[in-house]
Amino acid sequence: MSLDAALAAKILKAVDDNFDRQMEFTKTLVRFASLRGAEGPCQDFVYAEMDKRGWSMDRFAMDEDAIQRHPGGSPFSADHSKAPIVVGIHRPRQETGRSLILQSHVDVVPAGPDKMWSRPAFEPHIEGDWFYGRGGADMKAGHAAMFAVFDALKSIGLQPAATVTVQSVVEEEATGNGALQCHLRGYRAEAVLIPEPEEEKIIRANAGVLWFRVEVAGLPVHVSHAGSGQNAIEAAFGLIGALRGLEAQWNDKKGEHPLFAPDPHPINLNIGKIEGGDWASSVPAWCAFDCRIAIYPGERPEAMRKAVEATIASASLNDRFLSNNPPKVVWNGFTTEGYVLEPGSEAEAVLARAHQTATGKPLEELVTPAYLDTRVYALYDKVPALCYGPISENIHGFDERFSIASMKRVTRSMALFVAEWCGVEPV
Amino acid sequence: MSLDAALAAKILKAVDDNFDRQMEFTKTLVRFASLRGAEGPCQDFVYAEMDKRGWSMDRFAMDEDAIQRHPGGSPFSADHSKAPIVVGIHRPRQETGRSLILQSHVDVVPAGPDKMWSRPAFEPHIEGDWFYGRGGADMKAGHAAMFAVFDALKSIGLQPAATVTVQSVVEEEATGNGALQCHLRGYRAEAVLIPEPEEEKIIRANAGVLWFRVEVAGLPVHVSHAGSGQNAIEAAFGLIGALRGLEAQWNDKKGEHPLFAPDPHPINLNIGKIEGGDWASSVPAWCAFDCRIAIYPGERPEAMRKAVEATIASASLNDRFLSNNPPKVVWNGFTTEGYVLEPGSEAEAVLARAHQTATGKPLEELVTPAYLDTRVYALYDKVPALCYGPISENIHGFDERFSIASMKRVTRSMALFVAEWCGVEPV
Repeated sequence: MSLDAALAAKILKAVDDNFDRQMEFTKTLVRFASLRGAEGPCQDFVYAEMDKRGWSMDRFAMDEDAIQRHPGGSPFSADHSKAPIVVGIHRPRQETGRSLILQSHVDVVPAGPDKMWSRPAFEPHIEGDWFYGRGGADMKAGHAAMFAVFDALKSIGLQPAATVTVQSVVEEEATGNGALQCHLRGYRAEAVLIPEPEEEKIIRANAGVLWFRVEVAGLPVHVSHAGSGQNAIEAAFGLIGALRGLEAQWNDKKGEHPLFAPDPHPINLNIGKIEGGDWASSVPAWCAFDCRIAIYPGERPEAMRKAVEATIASASLNDRFLSNNPPKVVWNGFTTEGYVLEPGSEAEAVLARAHQTATGKPLEELVTPAYLDTRVYALYDKVPALCYGPISENIHGFDERFSIASMKRVTRSMALFVAEWCGVEPV
Repeated sequence: MSLDAALAAKILKAVDDNFDRQMEFTKTLVRFASLRGAEGPCQDFVYAEMDKRGWSMDRFAMDEDAIQRHPGGSPFSADHSKAPIVVGIHRPRQETGRSLILQSHVDVVPAGPDKMWSRPAFEPHIEGDWFYGRGGADMKAGHAAMFAVFDALKSIGLQPAATVTVQSVVEEEATGNGALQCHLRGYRAEAVLIPEPEEEKIIRANAGVLWFRVEVAGLPVHVSHAGSGQNAIEAAFGLIGALRGLEAQWNDKKGEHPLFAPDPHPINLNIGKIEGGDWASSVPAWCAFDCRIAIYPGERPEAMRKAVEATIASASLNDRFLSNNPPKVVWNGFTTEGYVLEPGSEAEAVLARAHQTATGKPLEELVTPAYLDTRVYALYDKVPALCYGPISENIHGFDERFSIASMKRVTRSMALFVAEWCGVEPV
């Protein structure tokens, strides 16, 4: 069943020979500061590159109504990206192999304060084996690898012998609505591969994620009478304390989720952003903080949302002011379920063989308490959804970086996987 | 020594007759949203109104170097106003009376969220005895009253028989540098009156104020590994707790300051503003919060600044991350001493008589734990610096308002005070 050894060797050499070009392509992608809402120019570049390769092109916007009706849809907020989703479809001469969706996202998280970076965040920089830059690891390296697989095959006169849908999405970092929109657009395949930076391992399970904003009102007075007012900022601290209690409860349940039990702290609450007040000498009348918390696979986002709301409501009851001025919980992003990749699929077996051949090592598995777009395909298409990508450090942090050698190994695996899963035919 | 009763009655009637015009003038002032840095148009209006009255005009900028060299100067920050200070000088035909400085500020604190106001903050609105609008009470009502005193006297053919310097300043709400700049410009008088909204009482003492910003660095990581990062927002909470401890210590010392001892809580720390983080799913790398704290009269700002810095430093030592990444304390506004108005001055006696005649009640005194510009004249000119103005509610809050009847009584007092202190002469 596995790939002919001579063909495999030829493909691996082709990947290696193309690798410098692949890194240049990655650099170009990283130079786009494709922050949420600003992914347009990067998507235009991606569109042109796909088009250049002769793929059938599709470009479309989110369908907010359809997303909101879908159980996997996350709420829209004013910050929701309006950038297009770009899809390029490779169609073979003859459909002899198994179809595949390859997907990457171009949206990147904010760089944070410049001074925390050793070099400018959006100037790609290589030092030793590390490729630095915001969004390089997460996940423009993987994005470039999707193209590199086609380019390497083409350099030896080959192409996949099945339909391969290459999807460049947005909103992976905030809602997961980009991947869902591809599903709603009707794209389907017998397997999906998303090359997120996952340590050259296959994701066995991942958590769902909830995003919410808590808005606290205060009672502003002149600070000389601060005792008679209500400081919204300090009221927020109390609510955050209550949410930490909820996080602890949820971590205590990890025994019910064997895949997550080995993780010392699978459920992470993050207070990611806070804003409040207008003036040092006025008791602040408002404070809002943005949170992210994980949920276990199998848990329904709606139920967990209710638990968050109940935690805020009950903490407010203990406060004279907040009980009369209840804080508001706004669901402004991720409302997504986790998933488990069921072991034993043929797609996973093909990837495991490809990884063994490409790297000389068996494919290990990983459970991650973060959001992944693969959930759309695992939960709603019910096809093998493989998340597998390079070794990285500091994604979402400063000096985000990926290992170049690892990226080469991953690209080699991806090429062998495509060749075996889809089959190959002459260009 | 006191004013001839017939003249007093004539003056009081003139104030009453002019009062509608005075309220219109107040409305015009309130319509200027003269927030910090945006006081220019309001000051231009004030300049024109002074000029129209035939006063000698002066308009000048802050001299940052001179302010920084002066012990009463507060640090400049990027937010420091660049709006001019406007001074109009009334000079009599014959200098027979005692000179006087009248001063008001035109800067107002931010309105905060619109929805918290019953009506738009900068649209003056009268309901019953209350005049609503941001900056109406604090202190455009008093500002308009300075003009009203002259207008009322003029309507009966009189004017002060001494030099009266009418100063319209900025930066009262953030640094006190406007009043100090008038002092540095060389303006002096035998007494000063500032009509801040102080419940128709005379301020016996007020607190000094320190403003500072604490900047906390975090160590951002992807939230799925939140435990290995350092959340700058939550680190800030710990520092705020330590500052609350310092506030409690300072309140415990109130026995050493008999004027403040009756106040249950004379030293108020306010956490007025907070900002931190960029993204719900990234551990926040930074958080900064703005504080205001009071100090007792006689305490040196430099010493109290050191106490604040030591509190932050010692709280950071208890934290593994903060001890290696010490938070920064930035002094970005008020660094001012408190003052005591020494009882027994002739100026205070004249105001007490004026108040008794105008309102039928004895003048009471008030100790306030807030900043007042009178400190410049009390501390550095060492002249009687009288702070006295109308009854108000919710200054720095929503639906800020002053009592119209109170403002009329205060204007009557002010007119009698000016007439007795400066004497009057025919226009």
